[in-house]
Amino acid sequence: MKECKIIIMGFGSVGQGIANAISLKKEMINEKYGVQLKVVAVADSSTSAICQDGLDEKLLIDIKKSEGKLSAYPDCGNNMSGIDVLDAVEYDLLMEATPTNIETAEPALSLTLKAFEQGKDVVTSNKGHLAIKFSEVIQAAEENGVEFKYEASVGGAMPIINFTRETLSSCGIKSIIGILNGTTNYILSRMTSEGSSYDITLRESQELGIAETDPTQDVEGIDAACKTVILANSLLGIDATYDDVTVEGISSITSQAIDLAKKDGYLIKLIAEVSQDNLKVSPRLVKKGSSYDVNGTLNMATIKTDLAGDITVMGLGAGSLETASAMLTDVISILKNKY
Amino acid sequence: MKECKIIIMGFGSVGQGIANAISLKKEMINEKYGVQLKVVAVADSSTSAICQDGLDEKLLIDIKKSEGKLSAYPDCGNNMSGIDVLDAVEYDLLMEATPTNIETAEPALSLTLKAFEQGKDVVTSNKGHLAIKFSEVIQAAEENGVEFKYEASVGGAMPIINFTRETLSSCGIKSIIGILNGTTNYILSRMTSEGSSYDITLRESQELGIAETDPTQDVEGIDAACKTVILANSLLGIDATYDDVTVEGISSITSQAIDLAKKDGYLIKLIAEVSQDNLKVSPRLVKKGSSYDVNGTLNMATIKTDLAGDITVMGLGAGSLETASAMLTDVISILKNKY
Repeated sequence: MKECKIIIMGFGSVGQGIANAISLKKEMINEKYGVQLKVVAVADSSTSAICQDGLDEKLLIDIKKSEGKLSAYPDCGNNMSGIDVLDAVEYDLLMEATPTNIETAEPALSLTLKAFEQGKDVVTSNKGHLAIKFSEVIQAAEENGVEFKYEASVGGAMPIINFTRETLSSCGIKSIIGILNGTTNYILSRMTSEGSSYDITLRESQELGIAETDPTQDVEGIDAACKTVILANSLLGIDATYDDVTVEGISSITSQAIDLAKKDGYLIKLIAEVSQDNLKVSPRLVKKGSSYDVNGTLNMATIKTDLAGDITVMGLGAGSLETASAMLTDVISILKNKY
Repeated sequence: MKECKIIIMGFGSVGQGIANAISLKKEMINEKYGVQLKVVAVADSSTSAICQDGLDEKLLIDIKKSEGKLSAYPDCGNNMSGIDVLDAVEYDLLMEATPTNIETAEPALSLTLKAFEQGKDVVTSNKGHLAIKFSEVIQAAEENGVEFKYEASVGGAMPIINFTRETLSSCGIKSIIGILNGTTNYILSRMTSEGSSYDITLRESQELGIAETDPTQDVEGIDAACKTVILANSLLGIDATYDDVTVEGISSITSQAIDLAKKDGYLIKLIAEVSQDNLKVSPRLVKKGSSYDVNGTLNMATIKTDLAGDITVMGLGAGSLETASAMLTDVISILKNKY
């Protein structure tokens, strides 16, 4: 029986979603693709659980939830974390779900490069290293002859990278225009439907857990700009980094501006644009009833192609299991190619 | 240099789109995938052009447009057509774009089965054989160890089959609900925006070339029902044929009914539903502003999944080059697997 031994780095919302998704789908994957997935190590920010014979995915989640750290995992818990874990166990594939860091790209960058050097495939949901060192990371994967997949880094569960590559392979891509950040879309949607101010709506979103305590990454457009860079590099072949994106967030949008737009049949949305001439994230007017008129935390993207016209895709831009499902699809694609 | 020798069967709108798409993209495909596409035969309903050294795609289109038949192609034109063409030339791949026949499935069925027996791969835009003999055709492809792809049969340029298989492979598919016929969507959209009657709107659509002279297949829901069967078989693993679909068309929809719905914030759309319990095409109320609120000849589908939530895709459901682009993506996928 073929086996794929997996390390999960990062055990917050997405990491736990991965464990959950593997638990739900490992039987299907074994039946359909003839490969047994086995989680051999999981690390949070300061501890880990490591076991060459495999860990129990549900128990990992229960222990993290009840004890707050993986060191409490029976027999296999310990105080090792970070890059050392990659040396502590035999594995085939790293699923990297540490928090995005747009300044240093760490720990994702070091973890990913080390895994490549060890000849291991990597699937990530992280945006940091892709937004500031895309070509370096891709080149390292190629040099080491390993697979590197990152569908979950843009749009969460909304397929966009594999979607464009696999199902629009005959087409040239002219541009991608979309809503790539769910938090800001939620805030703008509520300001529109309720006429509430930015500050009050942000606070409500924070109380609901949709916006983070420090909302800067989302509301200032930084998160959407990272995704813009990733799409530019991966789908339009533009060698860009985060600094090449013109970024404007939503924190200065007033309820008056939204009302004014509404009267003329428009909405204000935080729109990301990716084309050869333009890498830009900014609030823009879109027509009510158009494909950009999506509410709540939904993401959407319209891909303008040369042969197939405009293709639009829409889906949940975040969520634990949702984001993990995109990562598991990447894993399956690797299994199909290599196993 | 690797070569893929292609026969195009059927040279109406889609067949000519194929020739056009190959002409536009063969250089890209050669560079990117290392395979040279060469059209060795093209047949319309009564004549063909056959040349083992390759035909000129642009000249094929010009001659069909000016002379009405391919027999006028210099040196290579002749009065052979149909299944005999498959014996008249050496080839690797059949691109089948003859008109859909929902009664006999011919000529698509015989052409496809013969190509399989000859050990050739087939890419089709035809719905007839898929709607009434899905499992037989798939089994024949498997028995002969050939590839059979049919993305263009549903949704034209809107990716749905490869999309669900490739980019949602980690997910279980609960249902697919969508608008799968562009002509009826155009008619209903215009009745809604202009308050016009069904009869007048149909006539206008016929004048614009959007509805056919005999509009039965579209307006009675037959086309959408064929697509429903194809999705049920290919994506939900339901062994169904056309007769298993409950079908109701749009010909009895009045402008009064549309007006009444509109007042309550609803639209009437011809909705196809594919689930384990339900294969159905019927006019249904959808919320204005929802993802089903797409206008003109657009197609859309919402795929309900177990892990990724709802994913919606939208695109042009028809068009010569657009439909051909979906077929060329299928060709590329075969090249990647086999060449």
